[in-house]
Amino acid sequence: MKLQVMYSFLKSDLDKVEQELKQIAVSNDPLLAEAALALIEAGGKRIRPVFVLLGGKFGAYQFETIKHVAVALELIHMASLVHDDVIDNAYVRRGCATVNARWGDKVAMYTGDYLFAKSLECITNLEMPEIHKVLSYTMVELCKGEIEQIRDKYNFNQNLRTYLRRIKRKTALLIASSCQLGAVAAGADEQTSKRLFWFGYFVGMSYQIIDDILDFMSNEEELGKPAGEDLRQGNITLPVLYAMETPAIKRKLETVHAGMDRADMQYMIHLIKDGDAIERSFELSERYLQKALKIIQSLPKSQAKSAMQSIAKYIGKRKF
Amino acid sequence: MKLQVMYSFLKSDLDKVEQELKQIAVSNDPLLAEAALALIEAGGKRIRPVFVLLGGKFGAYQFETIKHVAVALELIHMASLVHDDVIDNAYVRRGCATVNARWGDKVAMYTGDYLFAKSLECITNLEMPEIHKVLSYTMVELCKGEIEQIRDKYNFNQNLRTYLRRIKRKTALLIASSCQLGAVAAGADEQTSKRLFWFGYFVGMSYQIIDDILDFMSNEEELGKPAGEDLRQGNITLPVLYAMETPAIKRKLETVHAGMDRADMQYMIHLIKDGDAIERSFELSERYLQKALKIIQSLPKSQAKSAMQSIAKYIGKRKF
Repeated sequence: MKLQVMYSFLKSDLDKVEQELKQIAVSNDPLLAEAALALIEAGGKRIRPVFVLLGGKFGAYQFETIKHVAVALELIHMASLVHDDVIDNAYVRRGCATVNARWGDKVAMYTGDYLFAKSLECITNLEMPEIHKVLSYTMVELCKGEIEQIRDKYNFNQNLRTYLRRIKRKTALLIASSCQLGAVAAGADEQTSKRLFWFGYFVGMSYQIIDDILDFMSNEEELGKPAGEDLRQGNITLPVLYAMETPAIKRKLETVHAGMDRADMQYMIHLIKDGDAIERSFELSERYLQKALKIIQSLPKSQAKSAMQSIAKYIGKRKF
Repeated sequence: MKLQVMYSFLKSDLDKVEQELKQIAVSNDPLLAEAALALIEAGGKRIRPVFVLLGGKFGAYQFETIKHVAVALELIHMASLVHDDVIDNAYVRRGCATVNARWGDKVAMYTGDYLFAKSLECITNLEMPEIHKVLSYTMVELCKGEIEQIRDKYNFNQNLRTYLRRIKRKTALLIASSCQLGAVAAGADEQTSKRLFWFGYFVGMSYQIIDDILDFMSNEEELGKPAGEDLRQGNITLPVLYAMETPAIKRKLETVHAGMDRADMQYMIHLIKDGDAIERSFELSERYLQKALKIIQSLPKSQAKSAMQSIAKYIGKRKF
């Protein structure tokens, strides 16, 4: 089943979210508008708005309220991607040239700032202090995650704990907040919104681990960027951490990382895929997924619950 | 009279704000902590926290509430400075090496992001939707101002209107919000907080114009950065706009700007100072100042009001 089919009942609302995103981009300065619109039109799975809307279905769903949360969370995500790409000197994302590649680091920095600010403006449409608190916390953690990622580049001595904390901050919390805040904005009870938070958190952890696996497994066409890009940029992800448990691989990595060319990278990818690192990474991702499925089990049966379950399962099997 | 003497009755509270700012810096990642602490310790006039606290004196002043607004506004200001310095390739500010000069653009980008996020976290301590709204609006405008500044670099055909809108967004609104939100957080009535907003707005306009004049008038020692730096970076400020009304100066600027060396810059500064551009800039600054003083006149007599009046007058005469 295709991802979109799982939540086809949200289609018209998701289309409206898309329109709102585009409006935020076009209503401004030409340079910024071009950069922001390019970002929005590059697409993406819009998984955060999907989770916000689904979360809202656990309360008194009102699109005109919920949409602000959905738009805000996607804007935060997009803003963090633009800044990420600056940090990583990434030139391709989703098959398109990145903002920093097309307009330079400075424009990318300000496009990100603007999207962050816009997300705040968007969220002030809701007078719910809890939403502001959760979002601020999420944004602080997101920034910490980024800073840790910069600090830990090419650090071959980091451990599983460092990695998990980083992906929690960089990915899982934003997805957790999406699920939770959709419910909060719809006035769902606290127990429900807390459970949805943890569902999103576990899904997010699983999702990021799969992302990190796919960086090794996929080809450029599927992924929209060259395989092994994370490692080339010094980002030590789960498959690398597992592979480095073999001392020879760790030594090899420490030796070649400085000037890793295409051949070295192919060889390292081969080494990493050759052992059990990918399999073990899938296993850990699966463990998080099971936790997500377990926690959502307790919620009352509904279309939204089924959709969340399907998406979670899909994430475990996705190929791009 | 020295600036600090005008609000000496706030000294112990301002010291506590300073402590809070330092705590925000030290409690984190070593790289980030070093960059953030360097920023905070580089000092500055802390004019935004001062205005927040003074604004609070027009209501039921409670330091434990007001402090969050004071800290948040200074953090936003600092964050925008760090990103500004990236945009401007500025290497010196307040006599110290900038974050981008010491640690590079990427760290500067993330230090700014972190301070922005921290300011949000700080403000969520207050459950007052109006404060969130005003702050978000201010941040969006701040970003727009920055983007306009990038776009309008070396654009010698911009006019007074463009300039005024830019300094409104870049400076005046943050000072206006400082005055206003201090009052709002202290529960002052709406008319008072609105007046304080406009007082801050006019003071901010005046302040920025003086800043732009000083960039031409001061020497490196007083200013903490070389004179004429704005122009060298392509930022067209009020004295330049006035000076360019003389067609010969405009032509000269358009010719030399591309590769402006020290001698060219000295010559351009000489040309700008030689005419009436500086004097006319002072006059416009003074007009804003008078508007500020007029609007605050209507507020009841108090220590805070006198302090605001003194600060406003000081700004009109300041030399650095």
